[in-house]
Amino acid sequence: MAGPVQSIERAAAILRLLAGGPRRLGLGEVAASLGLAKGTAHGILRTLQHVDFVEQDAATGKYQLGAALLHLGTSYLDVNELRSRSLNWADALAARSGEAVRLGTPLEGSVLIVHHVFRPDDTFQTLDVGSLLPLHASSLGKVLLAFGTAAIEPGQYPGLEAYTRHTLIDREQLARALAEVRELGWAAEIQEMSMGEAGLAAPIRGHGGLVVGAIGLSGPVERICDSQGHPRPSLITLIREAARAISRDLGAARW
Amino acid sequence: MAGPVQSIERAAAILRLLAGGPRRLGLGEVAASLGLAKGTAHGILRTLQHVDFVEQDAATGKYQLGAALLHLGTSYLDVNELRSRSLNWADALAARSGEAVRLGTPLEGSVLIVHHVFRPDDTFQTLDVGSLLPLHASSLGKVLLAFGTAAIEPGQYPGLEAYTRHTLIDREQLARALAEVRELGWAAEIQEMSMGEAGLAAPIRGHGGLVVGAIGLSGPVERICDSQGHPRPSLITLIREAARAISRDLGAARW
Repeated sequence: MAGPVQSIERAAAILRLLAGGPRRLGLGEVAASLGLAKGTAHGILRTLQHVDFVEQDAATGKYQLGAALLHLGTSYLDVNELRSRSLNWADALAARSGEAVRLGTPLEGSVLIVHHVFRPDDTFQTLDVGSLLPLHASSLGKVLLAFGTAAIEPGQYPGLEAYTRHTLIDREQLARALAEVRELGWAAEIQEMSMGEAGLAAPIRGHGGLVVGAIGLSGPVERICDSQGHPRPSLITLIREAARAISRDLGAARW
Repeated sequence: MAGPVQSIERAAAILRLLAGGPRRLGLGEVAASLGLAKGTAHGILRTLQHVDFVEQDAATGKYQLGAALLHLGTSYLDVNELRSRSLNWADALAARSGEAVRLGTPLEGSVLIVHHVFRPDDTFQTLDVGSLLPLHASSLGKVLLAFGTAAIEPGQYPGLEAYTRHTLIDREQLARALAEVRELGWAAEIQEMSMGEAGLAAPIRGHGGLVVGAIGLSGPVERICDSQGHPRPSLITLIREAARAISRDLGAARW
């Protein structure tokens, strides 16, 4: 059986690079970042440009992501079964809890947000669909880690990044927290990614019972937690019920 | 100078195929659709799967688009200058007109919606970002055609598709309509894509004055048009002002 096609792997690496750090990159920067000869990088970039996956700025000659990716990305959402089965439950959860609801699935050592229902009030909120959250500092991520759906690869992180003074950056401390998530069946994140913000999440199981994603609430810590700083039991109940309902829709046996 | 990298072109064609018709496809269907040997198609699909651009359904073995594309697609939105420069103007246009606002840019013989502000009322609306509209049957597309930003390639369409009995399917009739768009500086589409719906759009010019996109209003025909069935002049004025303001922000000389 043939191995992976090298030029496609390189093309994907260039797209990930352009989606990452400073957004427009010159040929030299792309080649150097991926350890490619300039001619090789140029051939791949020109092909990616030809298929509209990459655009070149006319003035500077620098490269950025192209329009075809937007259409492919939203087409992915159309076929994502976890998302389509969750739409109504997520709306209902936001309405009942009064909080923002997000749905996450693993992607390359992070949590990818595939659905986001705004908190049902008129405050300004930005759509998180397509964003990546860190596994160890989000409630969605902790669920995916706890149930083995995602893993922090050795060497993937130089260490666990500290976003606030509450972030779990010690691997043993994180392992204990994950054991607790498995025990309780839900995860909390309290000011671990951003001061003043908190989140709660529960696992969604697919056909066969494996955890395929997570659904959670997030918002200001004083709304998610009670006056003692503990997650509000009423919210936990609502999330767990929504997660269980979606799991049943996805074909998980009752659990 | 080396030619395009064939395996990347083929990979892009597979992704476009999966984003198109019936969503999950088997190996045989992919290979047959693109005229590839099964082994070749399999190598490309496995590589695309490896980089999370494609997912394989565990039960059926069929392929669908993968999660990494969603992140790339939303990252494209972050770097799209047309969109970022238009956000505030689009919000203001929706507020002033009371109608839904959409922003379009050309992609592969269609209009790609890169921004969508809902009509400011509480009706149920679905987000069109990432969708494709036909060039000849949308006001955004007519603007892109009229100003040479997009073209209907000979052979790309077997003919101009008729969506309603009002769609311009005759090329000479369409050419006359486009000449009028150039003359007036705006385009209308009245029940040409969907009965009961209408749209108006104006060109956005970038640095150097070339048209790089279009901004438009769309909604029920009785809101967009007056009792004689003509586009409401007040809406046309609002769209043209918004288009001019965005063009100035993008560096177009005053025009």
